Amino acid sequence: MVIVPISGNCTSPKGFLAGGGTCGLKASGRPDVGAIVSAVPATSAAVFTKNLVKAAPVLVSLEHLRSTGGRQRAIVFNSGNANAATGTQGLADARQMAGRFADGPGSKYRVPVDEIFVASTGVIGVPLDMVRLGSGIQSLHLTADGGNAAILAMMTTDSVPKSAAATFVAHGISVTVGGIAKGAAMIAPHMATMLAFVTTDAAVSPTYLQVALGRAVDDSFNMIVIDGDMSTNDTCFVIANGAAWTGAPLDGTQQECADFEAALGHVCGELARAMARDGEGSTKFITIDVRGAATREDARRVARSIAGSNLTKSAVLGADPNWGRIACAAGYSGAALDPNRIEIAIGDMTLVRGGVATLYDPERASSQMKGAEVSISVNLHLGDGEATAWGCDLTPEYVRLNSDYTT
Amino acid sequence: MVIVPISGNCTSPKGFLAGGGTCGLKASGRPDVGAIVSAVPATSAAVFTKNLVKAAPVLVSLEHLRSTGGRQRAIVFNSGNANAATGTQGLADARQMAGRFADGPGSKYRVPVDEIFVASTGVIGVPLDMVRLGSGIQSLHLTADGGNAAILAMMTTDSVPKSAAATFVAHGISVTVGGIAKGAAMIAPHMATMLAFVTTDAAVSPTYLQVALGRAVDDSFNMIVIDGDMSTNDTCFVIANGAAWTGAPLDGTQQECADFEAALGHVCGELARAMARDGEGSTKFITIDVRGAATREDARRVARSIAGSNLTKSAVLGADPNWGRIACAAGYSGAALDPNRIEIAIGDMTLVRGGVATLYDPERASSQMKGAEVSISVNLHLGDGEATAWGCDLTPEYVRLNSDYTT
Repeated sequence: MVIVPISGNCTSPKGFLAGGGTCGLKASGRPDVGAIVSAVPATSAAVFTKNLVKAAPVLVSLEHLRSTGGRQRAIVFNSGNANAATGTQGLADARQMAGRFADGPGSKYRVPVDEIFVASTGVIGVPLDMVRLGSGIQSLHLTADGGNAAILAMMTTDSVPKSAAATFVAHGISVTVGGIAKGAAMIAPHMATMLAFVTTDAAVSPTYLQVALGRAVDDSFNMIVIDGDMSTNDTCFVIANGAAWTGAPLDGTQQECADFEAALGHVCGELARAMARDGEGSTKFITIDVRGAATREDARRVARSIAGSNLTKSAVLGADPNWGRIACAAGYSGAALDPNRIEIAIGDMTLVRGGVATLYDPERASSQMKGAEVSISVNLHLGDGEATAWGCDLTPEYVRLNSDYTT
Repeated sequence: MVIVPISGNCTSPKGFLAGGGTCGLKASGRPDVGAIVSAVPATSAAVFTKNLVKAAPVLVSLEHLRSTGGRQRAIVFNSGNANAATGTQGLADARQMAGRFADGPGSKYRVPVDEIFVASTGVIGVPLDMVRLGSGIQSLHLTADGGNAAILAMMTTDSVPKSAAATFVAHGISVTVGGIAKGAAMIAPHMATMLAFVTTDAAVSPTYLQVALGRAVDDSFNMIVIDGDMSTNDTCFVIANGAAWTGAPLDGTQQECADFEAALGHVCGELARAMARDGEGSTKFITIDVRGAATREDARRVARSIAGSNLTKSAVLGADPNWGRIACAAGYSGAALDPNRIEIAIGDMTLVRGGVATLYDPERASSQMKGAEVSISVNLHLGDGEATAWGCDLTPEYVRLNSDYTT
């Protein structure tokens, strides 16, 4: 299995164009509308928020995905307004976004309306200004190096643009997976949402693409915790256009599938970690490695529980080696656990063994937490289950950012 | 059903004595050891943390409760050290606490070791100083008005002492339920734990006492959310000594049971709300009323999810009527929900009806959140399920308090 991480984004794979523009949805005057399109027909898959309150663009994208069986080859999106909790008008607006793209920039590539995904991020509960957004979509200029313009158009409270790409070689052909994302809180303040758009020039059957995406999301976006709140708009799309490919579509049986999944996993993982690093108000990036759990699912529970603990996050801010909070969060995670076996390390120092504190030097333990990257390792000594989660510290700045968003 | 709330504590019911002292477990020199005892035999019940990492005093109390079938009539406790994650030494220390009480202040009332509950709160992972604590227990002076001294001995980060009491009349006899509690975070910074000790001079069968306590805890301590972290030491004890009672013990069949449960519920509710009001660093007390859920359990899920949402808690701090965050938290609560039926009010203003924003004045909506008490009401319009949860805002001060506890 050989994949090569490269610097790139959603237009790095062959046959994809993208672009972004400004239509006035954001008071700041920053870019707020964008699109990605494959010049040729493609297959697609998607993972959406599990929140029962789903925004209109999620419902319309799901509808398109189902009606075509996974044939989307374009994504049209806006920031500045999430088109969530907007009732039947919201659904009509989301459909109109796809319609305006099909009639406008998409017409050059003959993209039918139902082959278009839609995504929105921003304020909840306010109807979209479709006059502005409609003409913004109409005016989009898509190019083969437009990936960076698309990223700028999707950002809300993000402080840095987020992109990743990787290549692998199959049958002598270089294949690329690339992606872009936004998100700085699992749900950012009123400016909701994590959005991730991934493209690849591999040919992939829609059924297998959905399986591969599910696996990649499970180990990446589903393992980051910023504030534990889950947005109404969270979305990850992948589009595979086969532009680099001569063989049959990947369907999960071929040898190249391992490399494809590794590349997809790399791109999703990098995008997810970039979000955790950019957590609102955060100053430190936390990696939580869990081993020795009874099952993989238990390891995931423990890792996410620790990543989501306000007390652990606060302790990381202050470089306080407060392992009691880590043990607590493991204890209430729902995973099987024997308190007398648990082992906890911060950085390269083991603070707890067999559930009891080692004779560690508190000053040295604290020094393991003073950098911008903090590593927490937990071994439950029960089985083979392993998982990694990522998060960030909780800071007074996070609270300030989120305490006066709409006023 | 007539109960009368009164000002009182764990020594308000007849036949109970309590006291507190200082033995040097706390660097601050504040009181750190205490006990409550019934002068006559009694029945008991208890609810403990569901965290799989249980502190030694929880394990020893559970052992005593089971071996006697609910006959505890004394509680010996300390603050300043949680005796958690302390291995076999911790278990021996917790047993020794009971032993020292039985040999010391308890000997006057002939309290056997296994009729004693034990509780600890404070730093995790540090062995108890049993030399100090042992002589502290030995020197305790218990009196019939010692409830307030006992409260002071259990406080950690609490800014106010917490007590409550209520009376009702059965067969012409006045019966009292009283209680004391500590807790200012569901798990406070390293100084873990919610502790609540309730006494009554009613006579109650142990089986029914456990049922009644379970119901009271479900609607009180289990409905407050401060930071969502669950302590290794959370404990609620109730002791019923029958000192006011001439009839047969309450066993759930008598007419007076309704009043008894109302009094017990009142005491637990007041203690729980006092904890939420005293949430670390908080400036506002939040009440979340949920109606119209498909089931009572769903209503509880939604209420707790909103109370636990960092984004909602941050919005309350800033008096930001950000109902999108409330809808989101309802959506990911796990409860059945139709986004097109949800109704949300803050104070007496309805902001959302049928899932869509009403034409409300944002300034007026914000003014509903500027006081020290904020009320959020959600109606799911699905069924009859109702529940109420209580919480507090999230503040920069909470983060600061919890970022440098041990260093």
